Amino acid sequence: MDNYYDYAASTPVSQRVLDAMKPWENEKFANASSDHQAGRASALAIQQARECIAEKIRALPSEIIFTSGASEANNLALKGFTFKHLDTKGHIITSEIEHKCILNTCAFLESIGFEVTYLAPDRDGRISPSSLAAEIRSNTILISIHHVNNELGTIQPIKEFGAIAFENNIRFHTDAAQSFCKCDIDVDDMDIDMLSISGHKIYGPKGIGALYVRDARDSELVPLIHGGGQEAGLRGGTSPTPLIVGLAAAVESYPTKSDSIEKQFLDVIAKFDFTRNGGVSVVPSTWSVTFQTDKEVKRFMSDYPWLISQGSACNALSNVASHVLTAIGMSEETARRTYRISLPPHQISES
Amino acid sequence: MDNYYDYAASTPVSQRVLDAMKPWENEKFANASSDHQAGRASALAIQQARECIAEKIRALPSEIIFTSGASEANNLALKGFTFKHLDTKGHIITSEIEHKCILNTCAFLESIGFEVTYLAPDRDGRISPSSLAAEIRSNTILISIHHVNNELGTIQPIKEFGAIAFENNIRFHTDAAQSFCKCDIDVDDMDIDMLSISGHKIYGPKGIGALYVRDARDSELVPLIHGGGQEAGLRGGTSPTPLIVGLAAAVESYPTKSDSIEKQFLDVIAKFDFTRNGGVSVVPSTWSVTFQTDKEVKRFMSDYPWLISQGSACNALSNVASHVLTAIGMSEETARRTYRISLPPHQISES
Ligand SMILES: Cc1ncc(COP(=O)(O)O)c(C=O)c1O
Ligand SMILES: Cc1ncc(COP(=O)(O)O)c(C=O)c1O
Repeated sequence: MDNYYDYAASTPVSQRVLDAMKPWENEKFANASSDHQAGRASALAIQQARECIAEKIRALPSEIIFTSGASEANNLALKGFTFKHLDTKGHIITSEIEHKCILNTCAFLESIGFEVTYLAPDRDGRISPSSLAAEIRSNTILISIHHVNNELGTIQPIKEFGAIAFENNIRFHTDAAQSFCKCDIDVDDMDIDMLSISGHKIYGPKGIGALYVRDARDSELVPLIHGGGQEAGLRGGTSPTPLIVGLAAAVESYPTKSDSIEKQFLDVIAKFDFTRNGGVSVVPSTWSVTFQTDKEVKRFMSDYPWLISQGSACNALSNVASHVLTAIGMSEETARRTYRISLPPHQISES
Repeated sequence: MDNYYDYAASTPVSQRVLDAMKPWENEKFANASSDHQAGRASALAIQQARECIAEKIRALPSEIIFTSGASEANNLALKGFTFKHLDTKGHIITSEIEHKCILNTCAFLESIGFEVTYLAPDRDGRISPSSLAAEIRSNTILISIHHVNNELGTIQPIKEFGAIAFENNIRFHTDAAQSFCKCDIDVDDMDIDMLSISGHKIYGPKGIGALYVRDARDSELVPLIHGGGQEAGLRGGTSPTPLIVGLAAAVESYPTKSDSIEKQFLDVIAKFDFTRNGGVSVVPSTWSVTFQTDKEVKRFMSDYPWLISQGSACNALSNVASHVLTAIGMSEETARRTYRISLPPHQISES
C-alpha cells in the first residue's frame, strides 16, 4: 500500500516480527500454563518478551501485564484501579482529548458514581500542568492523561503531570499507545504508575498490548478479565505466545530513522497551502493538516489519492468533527478541511 | 511435538489458518475502523469471518462479538450482563466445575453483592437439569454452565439447561471453549443466550475468541472493554483482522475425522490398567485417565514421556488436586494418579 499514510491508525507487521512469531504458531505452540517442557518453553519466551518491554520503559518485568491492546490496558488501568474504591468512590482527572476508550470508560465510571474532571487543552492540544494541579481535590484518586495525542501528534508534559500526581499521592496513568518506542519513557523518572501500550502502532501484531503497573503484585488492581492466574493474577486468558513474542520483536527492531516515505511526503505537502496543528512539541510522524480552502482540499485529494484519516480511525465512521478538533476550538467548517496524515513511525532521536 | 497429547490445553495453528492470516499481517493491514478503501477491506474480511462463526452455531452475524479469547468472552458475558443489575443485584447459578475464569468472575461478583449458587456434578462430572431447576429463585438473573468440561471431556445436557432457563425467563450462558466445532451447536434450538468460544482450541490463533450474544445490539450488555464503538459498541479495541480471519479459517477447515495419533494412543493406553473418568457422554479427544496404582503411573510415564496435563493447563502450576476432580468426589490420592490426555480434536459425527 504505497499510498498509505495512516500509520497512526495501524502499521503493517514487519518481517522481523513475523519471523519471530512463526515458530510459536505451529511448532512450539504449547499453552504457557502447561506444566511440561513444551509449556515451559512458551512461558520462558513470554518471560523474555516481558523483560524486553520492561527494559524499554525502565520498569521491572513483573510490572508488565500483557493485554489484547491499549484499549484493554486503558480499561484495566481505570476500572481495575477504581474498582478497588467501589464503596467509597472518588474523583478522577483526565482530559477532553483522550482516546475514546478512555472517555467511554470514564463515562461508565461516572454512571456508577465516580466523579470525573475533563481538562481542556489549549489550541495546540496541550494540557497544561497548572490546569491539572488546579483540579486536584481531596478525593482525587487517579489521573489519566495520554502521552501523545493520536490525532494531533502533540506530546504532553507527562513528567510534570507525574510530579504533580506524586506530590499529591495520587496514582498517575498514561495512555502511551502513540508514544511508546517513539518517545523516550522512564516510568520512574516520570513518576508513572500505570502506562498502556499497543503492538499494532509499532509494526507489531494487532490484538496485543500491555499495561505497565508499578509494583503489580501489590497493586490490588481488580482484574478486568478474571482467569486462571495468568499475568500475576491480573489478567486471565491463555497467553498468546506468538503475539507476545511479536510485540517484543517489534520493540527490538523498532526503527530509529525515518522512512524514505517521509521525504516524499514533505515534497508533496509543500505544494499546498496549509497549517499544521498540534503546536511545536509533536511527534514527527503525525501531521494534523488544515488546508486553507476547500479548493485546496480538492486539489490535494485529486492529485494525491492517499489513504488518510479525517480524525482518527475510531472517529472515522462518523461524520462530525472529532472531539479532539472540537476541543482545541476548531469550527466544524475548519475541521472539515483538516486531515491526519501519518507517516511510518520511528524513534525520535534524543538530544 | 510428536509426543504432545495436550490438545485440550492448546492446539497448533494449522497451515490453512496461517495462510489465511498472512495477507492481513503486512499487505492488507489497515485498521478496520479507517474510513478509506484499505480500512473497508479489513472491515469486509471481518464481516465475512463473523458470518462464518455465526453460521456454525446458527446465529446471526450481528450476534458475534469478537474477544481476545474464551476467558474474556466469559467475563464479558457474566460481568456485562450482571453490571446491568448493579443497583438491584441478583442471583446467578453456575457449577462447581467451571473453568477458573468463570469461578473467579463469580467470586468477584459475590464480593460486590451478587449471590451465586454452584451446582455440584455427579461422579461423572455431569450437572443434572433437575439440580438446576431446583435452585432457581425469584431473583435468579443468569445461568452459566459450560458445554464440555475441559478436564473430563464430559458433555453437559445444555439443551435441557436452556429449556429450563427459557421457561423461567432467565438468561442462559454457556462456555463452549471445549465444544465449539467438536459438538453440534444450535443456539436457537438449545435456547442459548450467550456462548463463549476460543480460537486456540480448534487450530486457530491464540488471542482470539468470541461471545455470541442473542440480539446483541439490544442486549444492553455493559462492555468489559469500552472503546471506539467496535463490535456493536460492546467491545472496544482495534479489531485484530489477522486473528479474526484466522478464527474463521479454523472453523472452515476444522477436521471432521480424527487424526492418526488417536489410533496410536488407543494402542498405547490399552497396555495399562486404568479407568476413564467423565462418564459415557464425553468428547472422544479428551481422556481423563486414572491409573490403578502408582506403579502403573510410573510405568506409563517412563515408557511414554508424553506432554500431558495433570488437571488442566490453568490448574497445572499448583500442586493440589484440581477443583474438578475434587468436585466429582475424587480423593487427593486418586487425583494424583489421574492425568488428562487430550488428542487432536475433531468434529463428533452426528448420528
Ligand atoms: C491514543 C490511543 N489510545 C488507545 C488506542 C487503542 O489501542 P488498541 O487498538 O491497541 O486497543 C489507540 C489506537 O487505536 C490510540 O491511538
Ligand atoms: C472450558 C474452558 N473455558 C475457557 C477457557 C479459556 O479460554 P481462552 O484461553 O481462550 O481464554 C478454556 C481454556 O483455556 C477452557 O477449557
